[in-house]
Amino acid sequence: MKADLAVRGGTVVTPGGAVRADVGIADGKIVAIGTDVRGKREIDASGRIVLPGAIDAHVHMELPVRGDRSSDDFLSGTIAAAHGGVTTIVDFSVGSPETRLPEEIEARLETAAKSVIDFTLHGEVVGWRPGSEREFAEAVGLGVRTFKFYTAYSRSGRMSDDGVLYAAFSAISRLGGTAMVHAENDAIINALTDGLARRGELAMESLPKARPAICEEEAIARVALIARRTGVRLRIAHISSADGLDAARAARFDGTRLIAETCPHYLLLDEGVYARVDAHLYAAMPPLRTPLDNAALWDGIEDGTIDMVVTDHCPFTRAQKRWTGSFLDLPYGLPGVETLLPLMYSAGVATGRITVERLAELVSSGPARALRIHPRKGAIAIGSDADLVIIDPEKEMVIAADALHMNCDFSPYAGMRVTGWPVVTISRGAVIVEDGKFVGTTGRGEFVPQG
Amino acid sequence: MKADLAVRGGTVVTPGGAVRADVGIADGKIVAIGTDVRGKREIDASGRIVLPGAIDAHVHMELPVRGDRSSDDFLSGTIAAAHGGVTTIVDFSVGSPETRLPEEIEARLETAAKSVIDFTLHGEVVGWRPGSEREFAEAVGLGVRTFKFYTAYSRSGRMSDDGVLYAAFSAISRLGGTAMVHAENDAIINALTDGLARRGELAMESLPKARPAICEEEAIARVALIARRTGVRLRIAHISSADGLDAARAARFDGTRLIAETCPHYLLLDEGVYARVDAHLYAAMPPLRTPLDNAALWDGIEDGTIDMVVTDHCPFTRAQKRWTGSFLDLPYGLPGVETLLPLMYSAGVATGRITVERLAELVSSGPARALRIHPRKGAIAIGSDADLVIIDPEKEMVIAADALHMNCDFSPYAGMRVTGWPVVTISRGAVIVEDGKFVGTTGRGEFVPQG
Amino acid sequence: MKADLAVRGGTVVTPGGAVRADVGIADGKIVAIGTDVRGKREIDASGRIVLPGAIDAHVHMELPVRGDRSSDDFLSGTIAAAHGGVTTIVDFSVGSPETRLPEEIEARLETAAKSVIDFTLHGEVVGWRPGSEREFAEAVGLGVRTFKFYTAYSRSGRMSDDGVLYAAFSAISRLGGTAMVHAENDAIINALTDGLARRGELAMESLPKARPAICEEEAIARVALIARRTGVRLRIAHISSADGLDAARAARFDGTRLIAETCPHYLLLDEGVYARVDAHLYAAMPPLRTPLDNAALWDGIEDGTIDMVVTDHCPFTRAQKRWTGSFLDLPYGLPGVETLLPLMYSAGVATGRITVERLAELVSSGPARALRIHPRKGAIAIGSDADLVIIDPEKEMVIAADALHMNCDFSPYAGMRVTGWPVVTISRGAVIVEDGKFVGTTGRGEFVPQG
Amino acid sequence: MKADLAVRGGTVVTPGGAVRADVGIADGKIVAIGTDVRGKREIDASGRIVLPGAIDAHVHMELPVRGDRSSDDFLSGTIAAAHGGVTTIVDFSVGSPETRLPEEIEARLETAAKSVIDFTLHGEVVGWRPGSEREFAEAVGLGVRTFKFYTAYSRSGRMSDDGVLYAAFSAISRLGGTAMVHAENDAIINALTDGLARRGELAMESLPKARPAICEEEAIARVALIARRTGVRLRIAHISSADGLDAARAARFDGTRLIAETCPHYLLLDEGVYARVDAHLYAAMPPLRTPLDNAALWDGIEDGTIDMVVTDHCPFTRAQKRWTGSFLDLPYGLPGVETLLPLMYSAGVATGRITVERLAELVSSGPARALRIHPRKGAIAIGSDADLVIIDPEKEMVIAADALHMNCDFSPYAGMRVTGWPVVTISRGAVIVEDGKFVGTTGRGEFVPQG
Repeated sequence: MKADLAVRGGTVVTPGGAVRADVGIADGKIVAIGTDVRGKREIDASGRIVLPGAIDAHVHMELPVRGDRSSDDFLSGTIAAAHGGVTTIVDFSVGSPETRLPEEIEARLETAAKSVIDFTLHGEVVGWRPGSEREFAEAVGLGVRTFKFYTAYSRSGRMSDDGVLYAAFSAISRLGGTAMVHAENDAIINALTDGLARRGELAMESLPKARPAICEEEAIARVALIARRTGVRLRIAHISSADGLDAARAARFDGTRLIAETCPHYLLLDEGVYARVDAHLYAAMPPLRTPLDNAALWDGIEDGTIDMVVTDHCPFTRAQKRWTGSFLDLPYGLPGVETLLPLMYSAGVATGRITVERLAELVSSGPARALRIHPRKGAIAIGSDADLVIIDPEKEMVIAADALHMNCDFSPYAGMRVTGWPVVTISRGAVIVEDGKFVGTTGRGEFVPQG
Repeated sequence: MKADLAVRGGTVVTPGGAVRADVGIADGKIVAIGTDVRGKREIDASGRIVLPGAIDAHVHMELPVRGDRSSDDFLSGTIAAAHGGVTTIVDFSVGSPETRLPEEIEARLETAAKSVIDFTLHGEVVGWRPGSEREFAEAVGLGVRTFKFYTAYSRSGRMSDDGVLYAAFSAISRLGGTAMVHAENDAIINALTDGLARRGELAMESLPKARPAICEEEAIARVALIARRTGVRLRIAHISSADGLDAARAARFDGTRLIAETCPHYLLLDEGVYARVDAHLYAAMPPLRTPLDNAALWDGIEDGTIDMVVTDHCPFTRAQKRWTGSFLDLPYGLPGVETLLPLMYSAGVATGRITVERLAELVSSGPARALRIHPRKGAIAIGSDADLVIIDPEKEMVIAADALHMNCDFSPYAGMRVTGWPVVTISRGAVIVEDGKFVGTTGRGEFVPQG
Repeated sequence: MKADLAVRGGTVVTPGGAVRADVGIADGKIVAIGTDVRGKREIDASGRIVLPGAIDAHVHMELPVRGDRSSDDFLSGTIAAAHGGVTTIVDFSVGSPETRLPEEIEARLETAAKSVIDFTLHGEVVGWRPGSEREFAEAVGLGVRTFKFYTAYSRSGRMSDDGVLYAAFSAISRLGGTAMVHAENDAIINALTDGLARRGELAMESLPKARPAICEEEAIARVALIARRTGVRLRIAHISSADGLDAARAARFDGTRLIAETCPHYLLLDEGVYARVDAHLYAAMPPLRTPLDNAALWDGIEDGTIDMVVTDHCPFTRAQKRWTGSFLDLPYGLPGVETLLPLMYSAGVATGRITVERLAELVSSGPARALRIHPRKGAIAIGSDADLVIIDPEKEMVIAADALHMNCDFSPYAGMRVTGWPVVTISRGAVIVEDGKFVGTTGRGEFVPQG
Repeated sequence: MKADLAVRGGTVVTPGGAVRADVGIADGKIVAIGTDVRGKREIDASGRIVLPGAIDAHVHMELPVRGDRSSDDFLSGTIAAAHGGVTTIVDFSVGSPETRLPEEIEARLETAAKSVIDFTLHGEVVGWRPGSEREFAEAVGLGVRTFKFYTAYSRSGRMSDDGVLYAAFSAISRLGGTAMVHAENDAIINALTDGLARRGELAMESLPKARPAICEEEAIARVALIARRTGVRLRIAHISSADGLDAARAARFDGTRLIAETCPHYLLLDEGVYARVDAHLYAAMPPLRTPLDNAALWDGIEDGTIDMVVTDHCPFTRAQKRWTGSFLDLPYGLPGVETLLPLMYSAGVATGRITVERLAELVSSGPARALRIHPRKGAIAIGSDADLVIIDPEKEMVIAADALHMNCDFSPYAGMRVTGWPVVTISRGAVIVEDGKFVGTTGRGEFVPQG
């Protein structure tokens, strides 16, 4: 048996554990895992780790925000992703009260067509009203089964109130879909923010006071109750706090079918950065929390409460994030898609906190299962798409924005020393990054329908 | 020692238990409890039960609703109360975004001045904004320490959102006050109601579908979390459902300082009445539930989860409740202040479900403690106000609206046979009801400051 | 009305709260509480606090232990109790595999006949076997309704295994009685003790290692489950640890009808004393715990988890507690009946931690209710036994064994400064302690049947 | 690449999901999974399901009981296992107070040497005393890391009391091992059994009364608390009841590292069989429960609470189980190793309750992980032992003892119609069952050390 491409001699992280094996690829699929697999082209992976390509299941490329856009488009963003070992991204359709969800999905698919890696979409639900349940069914027909809701952001019109959630969750439950929620209590945030504004306390150091952990805890508990009563599968986006994690854990114990996300910045950064002179660059929602919250989230990673790590990649350049004296004027979001895998490998695997198998769950098979695109994606298994990343576990790097490929002139992790770095990225059998260079082609990425 | 008035030979329900004793009264206070107490006037209570006067801690007299008013004013309503053995009512100031809470309290005190029994007020909070914390302090100065919030009724402008609750609870916590909440999820109710309206399903039989128990359960869980995190004492108004009761119980276990109310109609009536031709007369919020909910609430009464039974008295006549074909057009509320004690005695004590001491807790000392007016009110104890009701435990009655004194031409309990009826009511030492007649005077009621 | 005795002008702690009142007594009963009560004899209590006499609901007078006896007999012990404001004690029948419970109760009643204050008994269950359920019914006929079990002490033959508990709890549940349990895990204690013995670690400092808190926590959780499934009312003796208290709290939430005791030594002393040269004098079971456990138990007192404070009075003199080098050779128990009320008043009320009303619940009405002897005992109420203690809240004392009346030549609280001291004790209308002297008579105490 | 053996064209259940693939085997290991794998010998698996060989992780071959032995020895039992698609069994060393655990393991390994499939052992702990912790370390050196305790069976000397558990769990925790517990409350069982014996109620219909679910629930809660406090990983054997399952679920929520087993007979049979004339054949411990318990256990399988299904295979023939009129005289245990996979496939997969991937977890990868022999065992993955079973999903069978190969003349499932049956079994690359015939050799099975 001669494959098109063989990755030979690496430590291959299969669903059944890490094994020393060769991986054979033909027609973009994995066709062999074995001990003597040869290919027309062969890559020597000895001494290296072969992971299923990472899936960054929560990103925002060229996201329209207040007349501006997040600074990576689907081209620059997916090239950067590829450099970081990410072979699939999950972005969002752009919801609006004026348009229907199926149209929004189709429009976004066009925008995403220039991607260099595969992608799928969550359907963002904005301005939806009970009575429009059919939109979800049409979205499912388009291959989108996870629908994103916000319990916050009433002031920018993105919030869904509990009545919307109750109706929408019921409909999505009947379709076998997943409701994904940005869970923060809108009204408390608004009241606290207004109070800070009245008192002129709008420096970055006040940001945590505007969105304390109770906002996340309350909203998670609430949407979990609604999910439980409607029977829908619930995905909680970017859990940031110990209290939020506890609410998720308790909800699951009470019978909620709950999927939990967190992000590298909630694991590795804390509110201490808000005292820095460039604090405004770290503006994200929910805000960064305390070191105790970091530790609680790592516990959640170790004990299985957290199902996946995503980046919520939403970069804005220094120019876009210009500081005006008020955190209310900032665009929110951090660059991250390229550093997901190196950071989690270095802080998780290299330190001994988690195994390489658990890493694969957190950044690849976990998201794939949640999206119901497993085992096409997220697994080194026969018949799966040949999306692979080869990591050199010895390679040390110091994070620096100018060595990265995201269209962003800073990194929140700048100066952090990491151990382990992706050196080859393969997407559906094609080597797209090697020797530090992107060698793929624009638009080669395909939409992955959720099944 | 010769008292002004002695009630002799009855079974007296003191805080220490029911004892055979005489009660001596002078200057409106209880001055003696003993075995040979004589008075200038003496009432023979042998064979009868002497309870502390009932406190109906949740009533709405002459409540302005949509250009109309509930049909009892403070005169007719308190006369009816006196007939039913109630010696203190707790009404509400009438909140408005245009006026300040202290003014609202003062205005309501004027309206209430015609009362024939004592009264105190909860401060209704409507249209309040964070930043006006001082209003609570001023209200405390006026003797009002419990503040009423609605999580529902956004459409009539009465809802407080979670941001208001968080700020207000924090302020009330610092003042040592109590937050009282009508807890139902507004947005779910609105969405379900709109759905029913779209489908033309606005007959009374649809009312429970507009406000299912999850609305109560969710809101109780949410306000309890906010109360727990702000440290405030929380009173949940009129719990109507098993799920709501469970949420209250769980919140208390988690450390919430929680006081739980229910009402006779949630114990004795169920949604079956919505199939009746006069179903619209039973319009109340929350709606009546199922027999399983009745049973769960009785369990809550027996196991101590429920702290008090109140009536939420808010009568509207048949004319006012004229049926137009839609439950949205109705004024909501039921008459009840006069039947509180007889119903609870008959359904609770006469059936053996609860002791007469537990009855006294539920309708007298419980509310008094919650209001911090105990032991001035709510106790047959030395120094307490001489508010007494004498019950004839043998007297049987069939409830009929025209035999009652509330200004309402129907009773939700009409036709119900009860055992035990109040025969003498004494308010601050004055006999105000005897031989079935009111013998007190207009305006004799006094405001009771909460301490 | 002229009573036999009137206690005038004190702050009287009635079940309805503390009021300024006179208390009139005739024929050993309270016959009047009022503002102008006169008596043939009158005691001026102005500036003082009049409490219902304390009930020490867990004491061991002249308890046979290893051929010896605890050093107070029913005469010396009850005289000391009277000095400390205790007007009722609850001791235990002495169980044995050879004798039947009813006989044991009758024998113990004879021994107790010399008491100077009233008393009742718990029935100690030792050597009982399923099949002998009738013994409980006979005990109930004798006025004993609470039955004491040990989950520990298998080596002295006192342990009841879970099979006994299951059968006995079922029988007691049917009789409406209460199961009282010394809850510690026997087998873990034995294993740990044997380990310490093997290693020669039998100094007092090792005692906590022989009986860590998990022993209490596990046993409470276990007996609570058995109680819950059999429906019996469960009283947990002398809770000593935070973990044990948490187990009790959780059991109650799960529906167990649970009554919780603690003792002054678990509130006021900690394992630090085991480093003292006279550490062996502090030998008690369960052992003293840490300051964090003290704090948790005070929280349990404040939040209502703890229902009563008892002393587990079981004194042994220095001679009896002679130190041999091994904690295994000691008789266990501490003197305490005389200091119960002063310590709890001083550490609880004088410090502001609890109100005087809560004190009355913890040491008088709480135990009386648990025993079902309320309101005959445990209340200043009409018709109740005239058991009163008058406390001088200003009186300061330093605890010293030789100023106390227990037959014990040390006090674990020696040197502790207390504020507030009992100055007059009245038992069934008779003044038995005044001016620091006992003025009652031997054998005047009566057995109080539990009803 | 030409393998020794290729299984071609089947639906292969890999850890990453079921895929259509060929499996290549060389030197007893899986060396290739792919689309065009050829071998010297090839087996056509088209239309069939290729599972990792089942691991029956709880069996008792030739178990000495009361002078008798369970009727399968390691030869007959493993041949039967092979027929049923089981490629690894986990038996137990035979504990005794007279011998040391390492000796017991070595002796049992000799007995097991005749096995035709691979095997490993749990170390049965009987008569162990605190102080002998070194025995566990030696056992680990021999490749045994799971240690089996009984909380019941004090009368046959097999019980470990809580002191033993506390000491042993602490030691095993330090070694990174697993404590496995047969969890039933001994003393309650004994008391209830004695009561039944006294009353002469020893027919099979009384068996459930001797061992009600509270026995299992209590023991699980208790050992879980001890496990939690000692940090040990805990495996609960053969959960039989809804209450027991709830206790396991709650313990896990509280932080216990808990692995849960159940058995086919608790899923498929209920206490109704105890009314049959051959009821005694169904004697097992814990006893069969109710249909509600069956349903709760299936829920536990579906929601992930149950980690594995094992048989507790312990056959006795009709002659051995001769009925004497008392359930006390019976040997306990059921035959099952051969029917594990067909029953779970038929009742689980064929009915649609679970996926074939979940089946592989329950009977293969779950046990392998619990034993730390994964991925050597329990996975179709590169480098894993080539233990495979090929199931014909269309094959229908009616269970009948004489068509099975266990040395037992009845089956508890006789007459049950099943869909799906194992047709080829491969052990370390050798076909050992095909065409309904065993074609392996005695003693070819190897011991699998736990790592």
